This record gives sequence, C-alpha cells and structure tokens, in this order.
Amino acid sequence: MNSAGPNRPRVVIAGAGFGGLTCARALWNVPVDVLLIDRNNYHLFTPLLYQVASALLDPGEIARPVRALIRALANVEFRQAEVTGADLERRSLITDRGPIPYDYLVLATGSQSDYFGNASLAMHAFGLKDLDEGLALRNRILSQFEATRWVTDAETRRTMLTFAVVGAGPTGVELAGALAELIRLVLRKDYRDLILGEVRVLLLEAADSPLGTFVPALRQAALRSLEKKHVEVLLDAKVESVTGDSIRLAGGKEIAAGTIVWTAGVRASQLGQALGVPVGRQARVKVEPTLQLAGHPVVFVIGDLAGATDRGAPLPMLIPVAMQEGRHVAATISELVRNGEARAFRYKDPGIMATIGRNSAVAELGAVHLSGFLGWLMWLAVHLVNVISFRSRIVVLVNWAWDYLFYDRPIRLIVRARDRE
Amino acid sequence: MNSAGPNRPRVVIAGAGFGGLTCARALWNVPVDVLLIDRNNYHLFTPLLYQVASALLDPGEIARPVRALIRALANVEFRQAEVTGADLERRSLITDRGPIPYDYLVLATGSQSDYFGNASLAMHAFGLKDLDEGLALRNRILSQFEATRWVTDAETRRTMLTFAVVGAGPTGVELAGALAELIRLVLRKDYRDLILGEVRVLLLEAADSPLGTFVPALRQAALRSLEKKHVEVLLDAKVESVTGDSIRLAGGKEIAAGTIVWTAGVRASQLGQALGVPVGRQARVKVEPTLQLAGHPVVFVIGDLAGATDRGAPLPMLIPVAMQEGRHVAATISELVRNGEARAFRYKDPGIMATIGRNSAVAELGAVHLSGFLGWLMWLAVHLVNVISFRSRIVVLVNWAWDYLFYDRPIRLIVRARDRE
Repeated sequence: MNSAGPNRPRVVIAGAGFGGLTCARALWNVPVDVLLIDRNNYHLFTPLLYQVASALLDPGEIARPVRALIRALANVEFRQAEVTGADLERRSLITDRGPIPYDYLVLATGSQSDYFGNASLAMHAFGLKDLDEGLALRNRILSQFEATRWVTDAETRRTMLTFAVVGAGPTGVELAGALAELIRLVLRKDYRDLILGEVRVLLLEAADSPLGTFVPALRQAALRSLEKKHVEVLLDAKVESVTGDSIRLAGGKEIAAGTIVWTAGVRASQLGQALGVPVGRQARVKVEPTLQLAGHPVVFVIGDLAGATDRGAPLPMLIPVAMQEGRHVAATISELVRNGEARAFRYKDPGIMATIGRNSAVAELGAVHLSGFLGWLMWLAVHLVNVISFRSRIVVLVNWAWDYLFYDRPIRLIVRARDRE
Repeated sequence: MNSAGPNRPRVVIAGAGFGGLTCARALWNVPVDVLLIDRNNYHLFTPLLYQVASALLDPGEIARPVRALIRALANVEFRQAEVTGADLERRSLITDRGPIPYDYLVLATGSQSDYFGNASLAMHAFGLKDLDEGLALRNRILSQFEATRWVTDAETRRTMLTFAVVGAGPTGVELAGALAELIRLVLRKDYRDLILGEVRVLLLEAADSPLGTFVPALRQAALRSLEKKHVEVLLDAKVESVTGDSIRLAGGKEIAAGTIVWTAGVRASQLGQALGVPVGRQARVKVEPTLQLAGHPVVFVIGDLAGATDRGAPLPMLIPVAMQEGRHVAATISELVRNGEARAFRYKDPGIMATIGRNSAVAELGAVHLSGFLGWLMWLAVHLVNVISFRSRIVVLVNWAWDYLFYDRPIRLIVRARDRE
C-alpha cells in the first residue's frame, strides 16, 4: 500500500484537520512511514468557514488539497477514505476502502454538530462544521433573498428573511456579525427594493451572555458590537424545537425564522463510539495524560476527538490544542521508535479571539484583553499569518481589501455541483 | 412587480448570458423599464468554464452576481426564475414563479448539451455548459485519481484514469489540453506513485480534423499542439453509444474510459419548442432579419437560441454574435418606442480563437492567423480584458500567474454543497 522503507514502522493518522496534519508534518524527520487518511481530499481552514457561508470567500481560498500540503514530505502519503472504526487487537484501521494495518495509530477525526438527539433540529437546522455545510448555508441565504422578491405578503417575506443563529460561541458570533454586514452593506445595494425592517439576524444563546469562555468585559464588548451591527441577541433563550420556519423556546415563546443555523452543540466524531472505548463529555475519547488510549500504548487520540486534560482541567475543542497535541504525539512516536518513553502533554494557551464583522473583534491573550478595532487588527494579523499557503494569502487579502474598501462581496453565487450517476 | 415609471414600456429579458445582459445594459438610457430574468443568480463567463472543470479557477472567478452587474443601471431589475414558456397573444412570459406581462420581450435563454436522443450519452456523459456541470466534472476528475490509489489492478486503474472528451470543437480542444496539463504538470506531483502510462486523455472527433471552423493551417497547428501535450486525438471517430466505463464507436471499436465528457452537440434551450414557434437546425428559433419573431414584432430572439442569418448565412453560436444581437435589439427597441422602425441585423465578425493549454492557442482574426505562443498571448489579452470585473481580473491573473510560474493549480478540491430540505 505504502512504499514503506524496510522495517520502518508505519504511522497511520486518521483525519487531516489541524491535529492530524500537524502530526504528519512533525514526523517528517522521524524514521517512520506516515499514511494520512481523510474523507475529504482537502484540509480546511475552519476559522474562516463562516466567510464562505456569508459569501465573502470561495472554497478554494480556505481549503487546500492535502496532497499539495504534504508534497515536500518524503515519508508522508495521503489516501482519501472514510474511517469507520479500528480493530485495536489486530492493529488495523477500518475504512470504507478496506482495513489498513498500522504500527502506530493517531486518531484525529474531529467533531461534528450535536443536536442532542433533537430530531427537529437535525432535520431543519443548518450546521457550519464543514465546507459542504458552509456552501449549503451560503446557497440558502442568497436563495431566500431571491425568493422573497416574488412574495407580496410582507409577513411571509419577514419570516423568510429571518436568519436565526443558535449558540453565541465564537462561531455563532462571527457568523451573525458577518451575516448582518452582508445584508446591511452589500445585499442592500443589490436589492434596491429591500425593506431592511423585514430582515432580521437573530443570535440565540441559552446562557446570559455571548462568548461564555471570555472574561466578562470582553463579553460585554462583543454584545455591544453585535447590537451596533443590528444583530438581535436573545440571551437566556434555550431552543426547545424548530420547524422549517419557526423556533420554539423553552417557556413556550415562538419565533418565526426561515433559516436556522445551529452552532450551539458540538460533539466528537462517531469514531469514539465505533471503537467501543470509554468516552466522556461531548463523546470525547478518554485518554491518558500522554494522549495514549489506556491499554493501547501505540494508539493516540488528539484534537476535538480526544477528551484530554492538562493538570486535571479538560482541554477545549480549539485549533491550538489540536496542533500542540499533534506535535506532542509526533515527538512521542519519535521517542517510542527509539525505545524512549511517552510523556504527559502540557498545553500552552495562546489565548482566544472572536471577530464580529468588520473592524471589531475581541481577543484575550493572557493578561492582554483587546476589543473593537484593536482586537480586529490582532485577529486579522493572526489569521492572515495562519491561512495555510502563500497563494491563498494573496487571494484572501485581495478579497478582504476589496470588501473593506468597497463594502462588496464578490462571491454571491448560488451554485451546486450537479451529481452524475 | 417592477417600480415602473409612469407609462414606460416594460422590456422583459429572459436569460442573463452574454446576449441578455448586453441587451439590458444597452437599454440603460432608453425610456423603458427592464426586467432581466435568469434561472441562476449569476452571469457566467463561459469561455473559462473549462478552467473550473480542470481545477484552475474557482467558480467565483468566472461568475458574477447579476445584481452586482446591473447595480448602476437605474431602469434594470433582476429576478431569479425558470422561464418555461410564453403566452405571445397575451404578452406574458411564463415562469415557475408565475406569469410576467411585457411590452417587449427578448428571449436569450441560450443553449444546452444535445445528445441527439442517445439515452446512453444522456445518462453517462458529463456536459460542460454550466457552472454546476463544470464543478461536477472537476469533482469527478479528482475523485478518479483518489479512488485509483486503492485499486491494485493496473487495467482497472487505466480505465478509471481514461478521460475521453467527445467533440474537438473549441470547448473540447480547450478542455482536453487543460486536462492533459493538469495531469502532467500538477497531479503528477501530487501523486508520487502515479504511472503516467496509466493515464489517458482522449479527444474523439467525428470529422477528419479538430476545430473544423478554423482554416486548415490552424487546424493542423492545433492538432500538433494537442499531440505534443499527450492528448490522443482520434479523428473520424463517431461515438455510437457509451456505458459507465466504455465508448463504442461506429464500426464497432470499443474504448475503455471511466469518464466521458460530451462537447460534440449543442442545441438551443427548450424555450423554442415550448413556444410552439418554427425552429430550424439545432432547435434554434427562426427569426426575421431584424431578430423579431414573425408575426410578433415586440418579441425578439437573440444569441444561441436564435437561428439568425446575416445575408443568408446562418450565424454561429458564439459570444460576439449574442452580444452584437443584444445591442442591436436594444437599439431597435429604442427606435420602436419612438415609433421608429426595426432594421436588419448585420454581424461584424471579430474572429475566432481556441487555446490548447499553456503557451499555445490558435487565433483566426480576419486575414491574421496566429498559432502557438503568439496565438496564446492574443488569447490571454482578449480574455483578460473581457473577464467581467476588475476584481475578478486581479484574482484570475494571480491564479494564472501562479499556475504559469509554479505549474500548480491551487483548487483541487472535491466539494459539493450539502442540500438541506
């Protein structure tokens, strides 16, 4: 399968997100052969996914073919497959393309939307966890605006043009902010007859403030910024059920909304349960402090899939956690192949940030707390540096600059690939 | 429906392609209200569609929202709808959103793939007439490469990696050339274990040379250029039927091919038949020399849908024809509202060109015949000037420059929008 060197151990990595890709890259000078598996042929820069959904960026600007990203690494191969389980006794990863034997296994299949078993949400709400979902949401938002041009009843138009984002974590806040700006700065110019009073962007949060993981001062700054951008923030609003065009809150209140986006719940990928190993909160796989699976010292779990802790505290589902875990596991494997020992993982917290449309973001970097324009400059710098490739950086920068200067989003296309066979 | 001025005649234009859009724009200073209708919310720069299919450009780079393109025109509105027919007696256009009354009607719904009633082609072949088809083809090409990495049988791999383009007109020639370069210059680097002998790009043509509308010297130049790029050109090869993985030629020869792209037949959109008016070759609607529908002086037909003639010669399905017809009809409507008269359309032929991958194109501009690198520079200049917007020009230029300098295509993503409800 792999053009393996003689007797070199084979490391199989399931998932080419931030954790898996970082791990594969960090193994470049370790005497192992690496096989990276993902169900998609691309690595996704998820922090900008909301910009695809809000029609600012095209998919090619936030996704890169995995093969292009690992091209320079002589000992890393890629294969596209859906990982469905693993036979830990026989040391074999199970995929829809067949079993893949391993010497070391790194599980990094990430997380997915969690509707907490609520069938109405699973059926009607849009998720925003992968590129397909981001494009589906973009199509829906733009289609709703086009469709309402044919509708003569104002109340029907108002329902169709109500976009409810459920969950005011960073994803929900960023999407709601971008959506409000798309409508007020761009679509208003496209739709001369648009009555802004008929358009609503709602942000529903079960807790009593947005961005619960930030310090109170930044939560308040984010709330003010959202309201300034005409996002209606509903706090202490717990969604009980939804239909195709309405939301029912705990307490009985009903809200008419033609599009519902669910960012309020995330759980680890199915792989944990498929393995039959103990999982904790959010279905995350329980791991040793070394990120090894208990009883299986050649199996590691990282990123959102792993319920890792650092000095007793559970680690959040964040990209820096996944990347640092990926690097740690690569270092551990490097030790193990030289008969060394696995060491406990320590997380170095670089801080957290979230943006609220143009010119405004909150950033909490240790003792440094920034909000407003300064926070946004920080956000811009960090994301521009981190967008995966040089070429994407140029294109993203051109688009952002265009958007910033002209309040225009170039990519308001309703497109779906036509399936064949 | 339309915020019409008092007693201003209403012009309804069906189709926002090159014909319809040009007509709408040319009516900006005529005292009429224009309603432009299209089933998509974007205008597509079709000459570069093969670059989306061959993973060089993202959809946002060759498509622009119609609303953005007409924003500056105070008397033009846009609505998204599928045009299904017209009641010419009652002066009403029929759409899936309901009937739309008109004073003047311009039909510009273009053309579609024609499989000549061959059910096997309609079922198995990919078309390349719209953006959805372009994305579907891109997904298929890239998926085939990924899928073959799991296949141990060389013969099966070879069939899966045979891409047969049927029809050596400009679209077929351009796609085959781009595909051959994608494979030899880019995918070869992504797939270290790729055996180039297992990959075939076939170009099948029923006639005895490619690009039958060009002068013989340019046809020969194109043929040599294609062969240099490892496109296998099969001439006098008439496709009789296809299956999911094979082509049967007239005469009985069978060719194994996992992907078949049909560019050999094009017919006008269904609208002509739906109207019940006389249609000619390729189902194109017969029109007066003025582009009016006989017996219906307020109805015009332009572009691929129209079977227009100039001094007896039928006009080809080309963008310059559609654009000039659009401008002519706008001028005619301007005359008619001032009680003037319709005049016959005259076509000014600007020449034809086709590119064969990097560095090579053929261009026939009157007495000037260019091929090879000079032809390609001409092609590049013409297309760069014509890509719809300034912003797209920058992005397309960055991508082309990147591709040219690094032989790399940044957009090799297999993506489909996940449909919801």
